Amino acid sequence: MNQNHVFIMVENMTTPLLSDSEAPADALPVCLTSPTVAILGSGDFSRSLALRLVASGVRVVVGSRCVNRIPSGLFPDAVELRNQEGAVSQAVCLVFMAVFPEHYCSLLGLQSALAGKVLVDVSNGAEMNIHGPSNAERLAELFPDSLVVKGFNTVSTWELQTGAHDGSRQVMICSNSTEGKKKVVQLARQMGFHPVDMGGLSAAREIEVAPLHLFPSWSGPVVVTFLLFLFFYGYGFLRGILLPFLAQGGHNAFYRLALDLVNESLPAVALVTLALVYFPGLFAAWLQLWRGTKYQRFPSWLDNWLQRRKQLGLLSFLCAALHGVYSLCLPLRRITLHRLVNTAYRQVKAGTEEPWDELGVWRSDLYLSCGVLGLGVLSLLAITSLPTVGNTLNWREFTFVQSGLGYIALTLSITHTLFFGWDFAFHIEAYPFYMPPSYLLAVVVPCIVLVCRCFLLLPCIFTRLTRIRRGCESKRNCPVLQHHHVVANGIP
Amino acid sequence: MNQNHVFIMVENMTTPLLSDSEAPADALPVCLTSPTVAILGSGDFSRSLALRLVASGVRVVVGSRCVNRIPSGLFPDAVELRNQEGAVSQAVCLVFMAVFPEHYCSLLGLQSALAGKVLVDVSNGAEMNIHGPSNAERLAELFPDSLVVKGFNTVSTWELQTGAHDGSRQVMICSNSTEGKKKVVQLARQMGFHPVDMGGLSAAREIEVAPLHLFPSWSGPVVVTFLLFLFFYGYGFLRGILLPFLAQGGHNAFYRLALDLVNESLPAVALVTLALVYFPGLFAAWLQLWRGTKYQRFPSWLDNWLQRRKQLGLLSFLCAALHGVYSLCLPLRRITLHRLVNTAYRQVKAGTEEPWDELGVWRSDLYLSCGVLGLGVLSLLAITSLPTVGNTLNWREFTFVQSGLGYIALTLSITHTLFFGWDFAFHIEAYPFYMPPSYLLAVVVPCIVLVCRCFLLLPCIFTRLTRIRRGCESKRNCPVLQHHHVVANGIP
Amino acid sequence: MNQNHVFIMVENMTTPLLSDSEAPADALPVCLTSPTVAILGSGDFSRSLALRLVASGVRVVVGSRCVNRIPSGLFPDAVELRNQEGAVSQAVCLVFMAVFPEHYCSLLGLQSALAGKVLVDVSNGAEMNIHGPSNAERLAELFPDSLVVKGFNTVSTWELQTGAHDGSRQVMICSNSTEGKKKVVQLARQMGFHPVDMGGLSAAREIEVAPLHLFPSWSGPVVVTFLLFLFFYGYGFLRGILLPFLAQGGHNAFYRLALDLVNESLPAVALVTLALVYFPGLFAAWLQLWRGTKYQRFPSWLDNWLQRRKQLGLLSFLCAALHGVYSLCLPLRRITLHRLVNTAYRQVKAGTEEPWDELGVWRSDLYLSCGVLGLGVLSLLAITSLPTVGNTLNWREFTFVQSGLGYIALTLSITHTLFFGWDFAFHIEAYPFYMPPSYLLAVVVPCIVLVCRCFLLLPCIFTRLTRIRRGCESKRNCPVLQHHHVVANGIP
Repeated sequence: MNQNHVFIMVENMTTPLLSDSEAPADALPVCLTSPTVAILGSGDFSRSLALRLVASGVRVVVGSRCVNRIPSGLFPDAVELRNQEGAVSQAVCLVFMAVFPEHYCSLLGLQSALAGKVLVDVSNGAEMNIHGPSNAERLAELFPDSLVVKGFNTVSTWELQTGAHDGSRQVMICSNSTEGKKKVVQLARQMGFHPVDMGGLSAAREIEVAPLHLFPSWSGPVVVTFLLFLFFYGYGFLRGILLPFLAQGGHNAFYRLALDLVNESLPAVALVTLALVYFPGLFAAWLQLWRGTKYQRFPSWLDNWLQRRKQLGLLSFLCAALHGVYSLCLPLRRITLHRLVNTAYRQVKAGTEEPWDELGVWRSDLYLSCGVLGLGVLSLLAITSLPTVGNTLNWREFTFVQSGLGYIALTLSITHTLFFGWDFAFHIEAYPFYMPPSYLLAVVVPCIVLVCRCFLLLPCIFTRLTRIRRGCESKRNCPVLQHHHVVANGIP
Repeated sequence: MNQNHVFIMVENMTTPLLSDSEAPADALPVCLTSPTVAILGSGDFSRSLALRLVASGVRVVVGSRCVNRIPSGLFPDAVELRNQEGAVSQAVCLVFMAVFPEHYCSLLGLQSALAGKVLVDVSNGAEMNIHGPSNAERLAELFPDSLVVKGFNTVSTWELQTGAHDGSRQVMICSNSTEGKKKVVQLARQMGFHPVDMGGLSAAREIEVAPLHLFPSWSGPVVVTFLLFLFFYGYGFLRGILLPFLAQGGHNAFYRLALDLVNESLPAVALVTLALVYFPGLFAAWLQLWRGTKYQRFPSWLDNWLQRRKQLGLLSFLCAALHGVYSLCLPLRRITLHRLVNTAYRQVKAGTEEPWDELGVWRSDLYLSCGVLGLGVLSLLAITSLPTVGNTLNWREFTFVQSGLGYIALTLSITHTLFFGWDFAFHIEAYPFYMPPSYLLAVVVPCIVLVCRCFLLLPCIFTRLTRIRRGCESKRNCPVLQHHHVVANGIP
Repeated sequence: MNQNHVFIMVENMTTPLLSDSEAPADALPVCLTSPTVAILGSGDFSRSLALRLVASGVRVVVGSRCVNRIPSGLFPDAVELRNQEGAVSQAVCLVFMAVFPEHYCSLLGLQSALAGKVLVDVSNGAEMNIHGPSNAERLAELFPDSLVVKGFNTVSTWELQTGAHDGSRQVMICSNSTEGKKKVVQLARQMGFHPVDMGGLSAAREIEVAPLHLFPSWSGPVVVTFLLFLFFYGYGFLRGILLPFLAQGGHNAFYRLALDLVNESLPAVALVTLALVYFPGLFAAWLQLWRGTKYQRFPSWLDNWLQRRKQLGLLSFLCAALHGVYSLCLPLRRITLHRLVNTAYRQVKAGTEEPWDELGVWRSDLYLSCGVLGLGVLSLLAITSLPTVGNTLNWREFTFVQSGLGYIALTLSITHTLFFGWDFAFHIEAYPFYMPPSYLLAVVVPCIVLVCRCFLLLPCIFTRLTRIRRGCESKRNCPVLQHHHVVANGIP
């Protein structure tokens, strides 16, 4: 008897189901001859899933406990609607459990019908820190004869219905059964998703809480930025409002809380945060220079810091942009009109025109110009942080922007602050209560960063760092390198 | 005789062409042994298509009616140029009809040569509302022995030449012939597109007008926004310019038409539109509470409104941003200088400095600060509406931003308006001709939205809504739920 | 003896490895039964590559010359760490050479062990203009018995580790060996990349310098924009600062260099650059009209210009946005306060209030309004230039925005400039030293563009151009066309 490998090409299926040994024809799962997928449940997720499966060329049968009450038109015509027993008893091999985990027990009656089939658990975890087994593991306990696969819980109903069919959405899949995983992987590709294999069913806990994460990589930078803002706001409040009020009483300056103080703190936070973006790169370079090799791991705090640089940079840009808008609002304030009118009044009383203040004019034009250019460069940096724009850049272009333009932005911000400060830092009036102005505190860290970066550009140090990054270690002889600009390791 | 399944791996082809039964080797289409694609036509689309096919590793022969007049270098060297008969007579199985539909009749001489081959119709519809058969159906009538497949008309020449090869561009395909569709699907994948199966050739009409749609989902929101703008502009014109002019004559205020009135209407439009983003969610929640179940469909007007929320939000952000820029332009106006100078003049004539107006200072600082923060939060919302940024967020993060930050933006906008209004609404001067100021009209709907949303947060109502959304219906017993925050159904 | 084709489904592998002829089972490469990939080298790239391969379900063994000194935890547990001989001697068929090209010679001892295996060269070129063989060709000379494939050098370590697994990242591959290329292509797909076949190993030079390109399509537009800025800045310096200073001496206006002159040059540059975006389209249309056919190629300078339109448009938007921000900064300047106070002083000395300047008020409101709206439309254009937003638009929508909204932006910019100029161009004071103001020079080219575009809309010319673009040539009879709006050829 000839042994035939029966290969069935299912329309749009990308991978034929193959076996790696000769298997008798009668051992092939029946589902391969008429692939139908059943969905238990008739809610929003079930409906979106059915729409997506039909659009991908798969036969769908939906099983609902209240099949008579499903409004007509809710499901597309191509979908068969049956009660739950009817749905699973059809020659299907894959069943989506699109019901809430609380209702799994109610499906125990289908245990025999579901034996040997692949059950896909699409539920999410309810809380971040739940103890005990994951929903998928509980499902596996309830249906020990079925092949339980965890998957599709990270895809929302809206994504299913309207999302792109171009394989851009990742779907995390895990299961203890290789065969079950294989079928779900093929189906996911057929639907236009990209399945990612997460291992065995023990990974289900991690997959179930994945949709519950709330910007995990942003928590550190947001906390740092917020603390910096509190510090500068409190410092400015003390120095500019509270201590003068306690010292002199009378006319208070609490009105400054709403806008002035915010506009003093935001640029300081932006400046320090921007410096914090480039600080870990300098630490890393110094560490490599000191150790003489690049093959030792960085300390974990430095690794974390290096991975949060993009978030810190975007927060710095946000603060700088808000500072820009607040500053542009200054002429709209009531107090600006008040001061203008009284300045004019006093000038008239003085009897002469206001004299020409050349230095004051140069100072204000210079710091305004530097500020606008710095903000412009920072927005170029922010735009290249967008995923698609970043993807169109190669490594050299990306480093040119993030490192080159980044240091230009840092330099422009420092000059903006120094022009704003002008020579006031050298006068005693700038230090009421021995407290220097906020901008002076804020400009310290960026200057240190800039100086260290220039230090790293000195020829001897630069060559040594390049050799280390190209794999040489100080104890071995290294091949002679051309003197070219090599950026390695992703550390600008 | 052994029957062998001959499987041919064509370089880069992702899916082997398989048959699900034993077929003698001589029945295999010859094209499988030397896959060549012919393109009839030598225009821009033909050229870009040829470039793309060559880059994907496919042999291409181009047939043109004026093959001698094709400039050298127009097509890559790998492409064979022949006249039309020569091109289709080669052992090809797939022919792209890259000529305008008006010229299909001129190809009738090739009818016999094209018999049994797959013809791909890449034309677009000329108009949106044409009656009669689609171009693909006309082609099928002209060439009844060929397998006509509609496809690739939604891809522009520029996309073909420079577009990504990463399967991100969807290509809609339909045909009455399963075999023809299969081949075109494989070729599309080979070229780096993602084919979407639209069914039989009757779907060709829909595919042909797909590139003619002009922002179909934006028409409703744009009309609503424009009508709101016309309303507020006309109302402000009546109240602030026309009625005073008719009542008092003399000095007219028509100069206010160019900038002042625009800057009064834009924030009102932005405020109302932002409220309209969150209104349908509240309707839907109330509907579910009233019906006691989530399994009934919403009315279609509510469904449409729910699907247009993103467009409404982006239009609201646009109006708010324009309002911000217009407001920042106010100090640049000639009239501002005029008023400043005359205020100073009158102050000097009064003989004293302007007194300190504490409330006025607080009011202006507060509404400016709220406005800037509100615009900042709205821009965060707008940024997460970008497709790539939205794709990197999971459901919880997306809801946190769109719902949480959205309501924060709405609250900041309302406080900005109320601080701007201050106590003027309680004075009779704010109601010339019994007409309240625009901002008072505009702030009504957002306040209603905010109040209803807070109402939905009351524990008893919130728990009931959560139970309904998790599938319980008031007539059945439901499993006890933990008291946790569950966002379901995509309705924030 | 039955000949069986043994097809092995490797988990997640998208394409089975097939041969197109009957081959005895013992001739199959052993690697197909236990696919393991070896990586020589233990640096950052090796580590990221190992992480990615493990996540894609491939067995990885890493060979390092200093295997004992690799910190624990650097590589995932699933990866085997061995010395170099041990790694390549395992039953692997694919070896990544993740060492710097300078160290290839040190691997000559493994020549026999590497014979018959696929070596993947992942190195980048060191310089843009290197002579001599590429790194891949040198590797092929050193290991003549191995199948050298160039690939993966355009993917950065960060991309490998954190990048999407959705096939969105292109990987350029070339090799002289079809079999080696096939295996690397399959592996690339398995890892979630999209491989692009670049041909034979002679293409390795081009692939190796691909990551060294620095914005190749931007160089022309940036140079043009920069030269335009230098021109207008120098012209304004001459006309407004230097010649008056030389002519009259005394009070100099050099303070205008920092902000005033920049804010005069930027809008001129933006206006001319925006006109340059639409100029080539008009040239191309005129050329087609003159030649009577669309089948002749454009001159290469016109082709280049047509391909740089997006970059020119984005640079125009950048200059316009900077001009907007600089203009909004004008009220913050020290000199503005100075002028205000002295204007008030002089008004008081004049003894009357400043008279109402109706025309001045209208002029300033109109040019401010036009400027804000023009910048708003330009930002819509810039947003649709983002890759993802552009991908969601079909051709008609994209042309509507880029062409329709583009000409609206051009018109608004011209009216902004003309309102700003008002009637000053007709007074002799606007021409010191016979030099017209910058904005007058800048507005010439845009006006020409607008006039030519309107000329193209005349019915007779429009119909003729449409017929030419639909493939008719003046010598042939063409089928009667409906009078509909057809955009062809990608030239708006």
